[in-house]
Amino acid sequence: MSDIKLYSYWRSSAAFRVRIALHLKHLRFETIPVNLISQDGGQQHSADYQHVNPQELVPTLIDGGRVIRQSLAIIEYLDESYDGARLLPSTARERARARGLAQLIACDIHPLNNLRVLQYLEHEDNMPQIERERWVQHWIKLGFKAYEDMLVSNPSTGDYSEGDIPSIADCCLVPQVFNAQRFGVDMKAYPEIMRVTANCLKLPEFDAARPERQPDAPKT
Amino acid sequence: MSDIKLYSYWRSSAAFRVRIALHLKHLRFETIPVNLISQDGGQQHSADYQHVNPQELVPTLIDGGRVIRQSLAIIEYLDESYDGARLLPSTARERARARGLAQLIACDIHPLNNLRVLQYLEHEDNMPQIERERWVQHWIKLGFKAYEDMLVSNPSTGDYSEGDIPSIADCCLVPQVFNAQRFGVDMKAYPEIMRVTANCLKLPEFDAARPERQPDAPKT
Repeated sequence: MSDIKLYSYWRSSAAFRVRIALHLKHLRFETIPVNLISQDGGQQHSADYQHVNPQELVPTLIDGGRVIRQSLAIIEYLDESYDGARLLPSTARERARARGLAQLIACDIHPLNNLRVLQYLEHEDNMPQIERERWVQHWIKLGFKAYEDMLVSNPSTGDYSEGDIPSIADCCLVPQVFNAQRFGVDMKAYPEIMRVTANCLKLPEFDAARPERQPDAPKT
Repeated sequence: MSDIKLYSYWRSSAAFRVRIALHLKHLRFETIPVNLISQDGGQQHSADYQHVNPQELVPTLIDGGRVIRQSLAIIEYLDESYDGARLLPSTARERARARGLAQLIACDIHPLNNLRVLQYLEHEDNMPQIERERWVQHWIKLGFKAYEDMLVSNPSTGDYSEGDIPSIADCCLVPQVFNAQRFGVDMKAYPEIMRVTANCLKLPEFDAARPERQPDAPKT
């Protein structure tokens, strides 16, 4: 029995990635909610949480005495440390492709659009809401166009982004699709992305990780 | 003898990471320069290069018939595929720490400050130069403060970011320090970062990867 805790926020795209990975590995974990939009400016900035994660971002994984930060590093750690479904493919070439796709999202789309950046654009740059939405959509569309190209053009694409087993790439893709839909991006331009996403969401492991299934999600 | 080519730009921070890794692995490679600021709007947007990298970003690594994209995925690929110095540490805990530090830079600092983002802020948002510089400095300072904390607070820090062997974390740190200095960030606030960076730059492998040593760097 593992002793795993995840500092998470229900709507955080990066925490969503790790929740998928934990479910794919069939690991039990305790969710510790960090409310990123609490009245006091966000629990991620509290002194207690700064000690857990000096970046004041979620997610953070606690595994026994270990503190692991950064969603992709956490996913690789879980894959190396625990049996069960493999989150990284079996050859160096396939791993490079899965990691490259994951990083397309985790480096080149998501960081531009997360909460702290939108807060900066609103409060420091006085960017109007309609321009902030255009900013978000711009980086998603640019990234998804490339991701779609890479799915279409590579015979290594299967039921999932890389081959026929869900990987670290899919752990990143599905949360980014949720995020895109939330910001009103027209997903009809990305049929391969939507095919892979639909395949993922048929799996109970992805379903359990959805934002609305989390203990800190607002009750509807 | 390997048949490795690197699409690179002398001042690209992400390409700089991969150049360090190639030198640490003692791999010979051919540099194919991609001029990101050519008169026609940047060679990364040419039809030929789009085929190599649909994201229209550098670096891209060609290894025989393989095309590997995303700097961190390339570094992991090189480490898994070639003998020589290890770019990832030997235990899962240490690898998680090295990857987490690398991703702090590669996900949460650099993507906010690269050329395409500054071009968007200038041309689409009409952000004045002084405000763009403040933007760049903001994300560097926020990230470096956390990186510095993590170096100071963890006994696993050694001559380099993780232990006494240069790793993927240092491949990211040194280019980000160059970038910070170029944008006028006062580095006195980060003595541990500067200690590790100085140790790295004593090594010929880091020195050979410096921007000004590249074939496409302007002659001074």
